[in-house]
Amino acid sequence: MGEFDLIARYFQRPTSRAVLGIGDDCALLQPAAGMQLAVSSDMLVEGRHFFADVDPSTLGHKALAVNLSDLAACGAHPLAFTLALALPRVDEAWLAAFSRGLFALADEHGCELVGGDTTRGPLNICITVFGEVPRGQALLRSGARAGDDIYVSGTLGEARLALEALRGDIRLPTAWMAATRARLEQPTPRVALGLALRGIASAAIDVSDGLLGDLGHILRASRVGARIDTAIAVDLLAGDGAEPMGNSLLHHEARLACVLAGGDDYELAFTAPVSARAEVEAAALEARTTVTCIGRIENAPGLRLVDAAGQPVSGNFAAFDHFA
Amino acid sequence: MGEFDLIARYFQRPTSRAVLGIGDDCALLQPAAGMQLAVSSDMLVEGRHFFADVDPSTLGHKALAVNLSDLAACGAHPLAFTLALALPRVDEAWLAAFSRGLFALADEHGCELVGGDTTRGPLNICITVFGEVPRGQALLRSGARAGDDIYVSGTLGEARLALEALRGDIRLPTAWMAATRARLEQPTPRVALGLALRGIASAAIDVSDGLLGDLGHILRASRVGARIDTAIAVDLLAGDGAEPMGNSLLHHEARLACVLAGGDDYELAFTAPVSARAEVEAAALEARTTVTCIGRIENAPGLRLVDAAGQPVSGNFAAFDHFA
Repeated sequence: MGEFDLIARYFQRPTSRAVLGIGDDCALLQPAAGMQLAVSSDMLVEGRHFFADVDPSTLGHKALAVNLSDLAACGAHPLAFTLALALPRVDEAWLAAFSRGLFALADEHGCELVGGDTTRGPLNICITVFGEVPRGQALLRSGARAGDDIYVSGTLGEARLALEALRGDIRLPTAWMAATRARLEQPTPRVALGLALRGIASAAIDVSDGLLGDLGHILRASRVGARIDTAIAVDLLAGDGAEPMGNSLLHHEARLACVLAGGDDYELAFTAPVSARAEVEAAALEARTTVTCIGRIENAPGLRLVDAAGQPVSGNFAAFDHFA
Repeated sequence: MGEFDLIARYFQRPTSRAVLGIGDDCALLQPAAGMQLAVSSDMLVEGRHFFADVDPSTLGHKALAVNLSDLAACGAHPLAFTLALALPRVDEAWLAAFSRGLFALADEHGCELVGGDTTRGPLNICITVFGEVPRGQALLRSGARAGDDIYVSGTLGEARLALEALRGDIRLPTAWMAATRARLEQPTPRVALGLALRGIASAAIDVSDGLLGDLGHILRASRVGARIDTAIAVDLLAGDGAEPMGNSLLHHEARLACVLAGGDDYELAFTAPVSARAEVEAAALEARTTVTCIGRIENAPGLRLVDAAGQPVSGNFAAFDHFA
């Protein structure tokens, strides 16, 4: 099968929102009047972002999900995406499963594949996603103010647990393994929450490299500091999907490390004024996503971890860095 | 050096046209009123699109050039791009040279780097480029009509000659080697010509996989056929930059093969009504780019090669296909 047959068979579909999709030198998008275009690009590499033997349909899901998560963090409505794909060989079963997982998530969000590239090479998936956001309403990292509450959506740390288990470093009970593995391999981008938080959240970011590292980006961009209540944060691991009994398998510090620096969570971390608490709750309800207040933005730079008694908690919770 | 230092040092620059550049979850673009956004994505893989020992500054140039060439083929004005980069290691000299070549071409076209991704992995460069084109004015592949002239910009086949020479399959005189190698490694995207051809050309495509293959996309999209005068086409190899004497080193069939199926040319192939000949010439002058009429669109499907006497020319000039 040649390059163009491959594209036609697995990736070319009619578009309704884009002016022009796959099949010309460029795709053509027409953002609605008054809209800005939010753009994000993520590259997934075999052995780095996923295991070689991962189910290709979950890989198709995840490749798009991590990009949609960036749109969610900006409060942008998904519109379209491009897919560049380097493949070591043409494996039709792999392509069928990959595109099935990809399009299932794309369809869920009305996000159309409009173009891209295919080539031979070590497996590499690069998606660039486009979303619409009304002018001036994008959620940015730079808007956090002293006194703001700090929230996290959903649960944290499960993807890291699954990763450790798949690497053979820990063992998990079957049900917990299945639940955490789903979090690792098929993350749910919090698009609805991001949209609901427009005009409410003062700053937002998606949690991909670990909560503390990503929160650090908000703090630097906003020139503020933060205090995190670890007694509340540690329970983010006990969220929906995880077997509650399972938590007893992990001691407090290990659970906290998963929550604070696990990575691959694709939840939203965001800040909002104390006066907006009711609006945050309403946004969470509207988006059917739990949110938990885990701390407070402060003027003093830096990130302070405290326990239930307000005493400092020490620990090295480094964020994931591809080159560190 | 960590991931964020690497981005800050080599890739993060202030933007003036984009609303928001590198440093948040998404970049924000604001297409001007009445404009559509043209989008294209190309992925370059080591050993496939470039040699491992290529000068990284020319690689930076080429990675963007092949994307700008797609905008040129649509008649779109370059606006911004994202860069996703997988690197086997952090090599500061490589990064400095790569970004220098990249930004030199980007600045030439006022095209801003607004976001992207960096990760560790086998060297892979994925650029997605954004351009503006007035609603309904994009040059498409589907507009060619029987009777239209077929044109090619600049010269063809030199990149292929350089490739064969670098592989050691042929030898070229020093001056010709330098000229053809520049064509292979630092192609000039025909952005000005694409813009000048809006409203004049009936169809356009950029020549990346070989003239006949790419022209075939226009023919299929437009549901027409074509006749190409090989006596004219063969001389496209003797264009500017190449040492005229050098041509005598190659026999007619080899020169023709380079022109018709060389690949990596990044010229524009386009069609225009016979009545627009003066306008095509004026557009070429305005864009300071030579254009050559090499044939005619016909109703009968298929692509016919003829010699100076109008007699059929046979030959197998297959286009490049990454998976064939």
